[in-house]
Amino acid sequence: MKQNKVVISGGGLVGSLAACYFAKRGWIVEVYEKRPDPRDPDNVGKRNHRSINLAISTRGLSSINRLSPDVEKKVMDIVLPMYGRMIHGLDGSTSAQAYSILGKAINSVDRGILNEILLDQCETFEGTKVFFQHSLEHCDMDAKTATFKNIVTGEDVFTSADLIIGADGAHSPTRKFLQYYTKVNIEQKYIDHGYMELEMKAKDGNFAMDKEHLHIWPRKTFMLIALPNLDKSFTCTLFMPWSKFESIKTEEDLNEFFEEYFPDSIPLFGQESINEFFTNPKGALFYVKCTPHHYKSNAVIVGDAAHCTVPFYAQGMNCGFEDIETLDTLLCEQAAPLIDSKDPVACQNIKTSSLTPEQIEAALIKYTGCRPRDSASMIDLAMYNYIEMRHSVNTFSYKARLWLEGKLHLIMPKVVIPLYTMVSFSKISYTDATIQWKKQTKALQNVVSVFTKLTLATVAVLLVKYSGPRLGLRLPSFAEVAKIFRK
Amino acid sequence: MKQNKVVISGGGLVGSLAACYFAKRGWIVEVYEKRPDPRDPDNVGKRNHRSINLAISTRGLSSINRLSPDVEKKVMDIVLPMYGRMIHGLDGSTSAQAYSILGKAINSVDRGILNEILLDQCETFEGTKVFFQHSLEHCDMDAKTATFKNIVTGEDVFTSADLIIGADGAHSPTRKFLQYYTKVNIEQKYIDHGYMELEMKAKDGNFAMDKEHLHIWPRKTFMLIALPNLDKSFTCTLFMPWSKFESIKTEEDLNEFFEEYFPDSIPLFGQESINEFFTNPKGALFYVKCTPHHYKSNAVIVGDAAHCTVPFYAQGMNCGFEDIETLDTLLCEQAAPLIDSKDPVACQNIKTSSLTPEQIEAALIKYTGCRPRDSASMIDLAMYNYIEMRHSVNTFSYKARLWLEGKLHLIMPKVVIPLYTMVSFSKISYTDATIQWKKQTKALQNVVSVFTKLTLATVAVLLVKYSGPRLGLRLPSFAEVAKIFRK
Repeated sequence: MKQNKVVISGGGLVGSLAACYFAKRGWIVEVYEKRPDPRDPDNVGKRNHRSINLAISTRGLSSINRLSPDVEKKVMDIVLPMYGRMIHGLDGSTSAQAYSILGKAINSVDRGILNEILLDQCETFEGTKVFFQHSLEHCDMDAKTATFKNIVTGEDVFTSADLIIGADGAHSPTRKFLQYYTKVNIEQKYIDHGYMELEMKAKDGNFAMDKEHLHIWPRKTFMLIALPNLDKSFTCTLFMPWSKFESIKTEEDLNEFFEEYFPDSIPLFGQESINEFFTNPKGALFYVKCTPHHYKSNAVIVGDAAHCTVPFYAQGMNCGFEDIETLDTLLCEQAAPLIDSKDPVACQNIKTSSLTPEQIEAALIKYTGCRPRDSASMIDLAMYNYIEMRHSVNTFSYKARLWLEGKLHLIMPKVVIPLYTMVSFSKISYTDATIQWKKQTKALQNVVSVFTKLTLATVAVLLVKYSGPRLGLRLPSFAEVAKIFRK
Repeated sequence: MKQNKVVISGGGLVGSLAACYFAKRGWIVEVYEKRPDPRDPDNVGKRNHRSINLAISTRGLSSINRLSPDVEKKVMDIVLPMYGRMIHGLDGSTSAQAYSILGKAINSVDRGILNEILLDQCETFEGTKVFFQHSLEHCDMDAKTATFKNIVTGEDVFTSADLIIGADGAHSPTRKFLQYYTKVNIEQKYIDHGYMELEMKAKDGNFAMDKEHLHIWPRKTFMLIALPNLDKSFTCTLFMPWSKFESIKTEEDLNEFFEEYFPDSIPLFGQESINEFFTNPKGALFYVKCTPHHYKSNAVIVGDAAHCTVPFYAQGMNCGFEDIETLDTLLCEQAAPLIDSKDPVACQNIKTSSLTPEQIEAALIKYTGCRPRDSASMIDLAMYNYIEMRHSVNTFSYKARLWLEGKLHLIMPKVVIPLYTMVSFSKISYTDATIQWKKQTKALQNVVSVFTKLTLATVAVLLVKYSGPRLGLRLPSFAEVAKIFRK
């Protein structure tokens, strides 16, 4: 029987998860990753310019669970659950906002450690090879061949496959090649804000703040956030307009800035960590939406390569993992049409490694039928959530709605679902979540509007009834109103 | 005195016009063009997959005039003016719609011949070199260097410049390199329609149809258009949904299609030309908007490289030429701040070849300050105009508005200007034209709406007054209405 081979460009989080999935389904797997092996002792702790911790939630975990409940357990052993937001006021006061009325949590996880778990896992499969320090040079999507450059030796490595997967990140070379082979609609947008990470070290051997919350200092046009790490430090990220970054030039500017906006954080950081502002790299924030995500049966892009997002809903990785689960589901559907392809247990032993190109293409067409739209919805939600995190969380109307939606969710758990719950604690597609959220918003607005109108009408009637005589006004009787239209 | 050097990637229409301008302003100019020299007798008549004729209008001509009134004259000698649209009905009837109430025309021009005029012109300047069959391989926008590959010999040619201009078309390699150096927002969108050109040969040594119009067969979801050529043929272009193209499989399908939709064109084409449907290439239709268009003082993109459009307003080249005029105006402003930089005569002898990088950057910042927005507006207008051309021109409301706007334009030439006039016969920025057009639309709608309401109210009052008694209704008197609100 034919055994298909997949070549994956990129061995980051999504690439290594894809490798595990395809290996499990019986494929020969080759992964080519630009960076050095993170497990190599020489490289441990080498910081790249990416965020070092992420929040994994239901979608991400579901995808790992479908791969293997054991791996999910390994991951859950290294996460720190965050049950809500801890809002830090200007006066140093804090107030907690739960993510879920049912006590659910999102999980702070170290990008590097998670990547290592997945790399270890994919290498347990025979027939899977991971090549580090190899970057995609050329990809012929008709011939299904690719050339990678060994960055160390300068050598070119030529390979061919039945399917090429681009999991090579926000500036994906695979996405660029895809455009030579098919018409790709693209929207790429940089926002006027950047980010910088600052470290808040452990204090006397313990966390400097409550470790069960994601900390936010919302300051309307900018914000500071903090996620806990296993070593009891917090990774803090400052999100601000570029102009604000540029306005802080001296240590004096910086201290003034912290004193004005994040006074309670100063003793927690310590001056040394705050001063890293002048040496730490700043990152750009942008998103990329595109469609289609595939070319024939030959190539498909996943993760950031297919949908790079701003980070404000912590869904970048979760959506990327969901890509892989979706792709696997669609391939299983082709291999075993009689089995419920969404059921991880029922699919446990399905092999997809002898699917024909026609079957693979059928799966990829369905993939492009849903993922571009869903990931675009996710990006829109993330853009919206920046405003929520840095501003709305501080407003009365937001808190009132949060409270009301929470209560309604308890009474009618299927009719009213808070947006955060749909995005982070469910597998409802991002598109459906957005539609449902807009409907709920409209319904809530309508209720408020009807109440407002009834109240106003009552006030008006009462006003005329009781103050009318003094003002020379009276309410016409029903008979009078009716009469004037009759002869 | 320092003499700046410009390297231009692309020697098509916009690239060769840019070469002329920079040479005129005293720069050393190198142009690298991927295709072979169109003036080489071996290449004449070799058809590439681009449209062979275009419509040049006020913006394009203005830019050539600023370069040299003599060149403008040369161009005007090879154009065929089109004074309006000739609408072909399903029954073979035709009706003309003038482009301008003042008798203005757009001009059908052969892409190849226009390109040759501009190439000849730029080569009249000493210090200007054009290299054909060289394509951009690499561009270091910090070092201001570029490597072009000689397609014939395979050799790499390395060059450096004070300014690098990307005029290398819709799939611009320069635009791709620009993204490594600066944050570029991009929107690229393919529409679900494609196009195909068909030739309508001269009939008995003369034009087969009226040569002073752009012919349109508007068929709601698709259309056929025809532009006259110097050799008395017409180049016809079929714009249709891809699905429609695919539905025509046999000669029988094709003949049925033509008989149903373009019956009057069949004798004009002849069966042989119609059958080219099965061999002629089909083209995709897409647009690209992006911003910024420059990097420091080092590089700038122009023409299709900066703003690729769908062709429905015939503004792609005109906008590209306007780019070059704008760029020249901004550079002249830096070189001679006391001269009116928009006045071609006053600027005749200005040299910009010894501008400093700071001055060039100042000009490019202003360039990015206007051109991305203006060209995006142009693209939006072109997308809109597809609907107008293939459908609206057939509707009563469109014709009524066209008539009304025309009349109002005669009475108040500065207050009401038809959109087509602003776009094709003025140099009002595309953005301002769009704003003005929306305002006009709203004002016209308001007038219509007030008239409609007044008419309806009058009808209602008359109805109650005259038919009321029979129906048991009467109008309340003013005194009665007033009384019920008084005690």
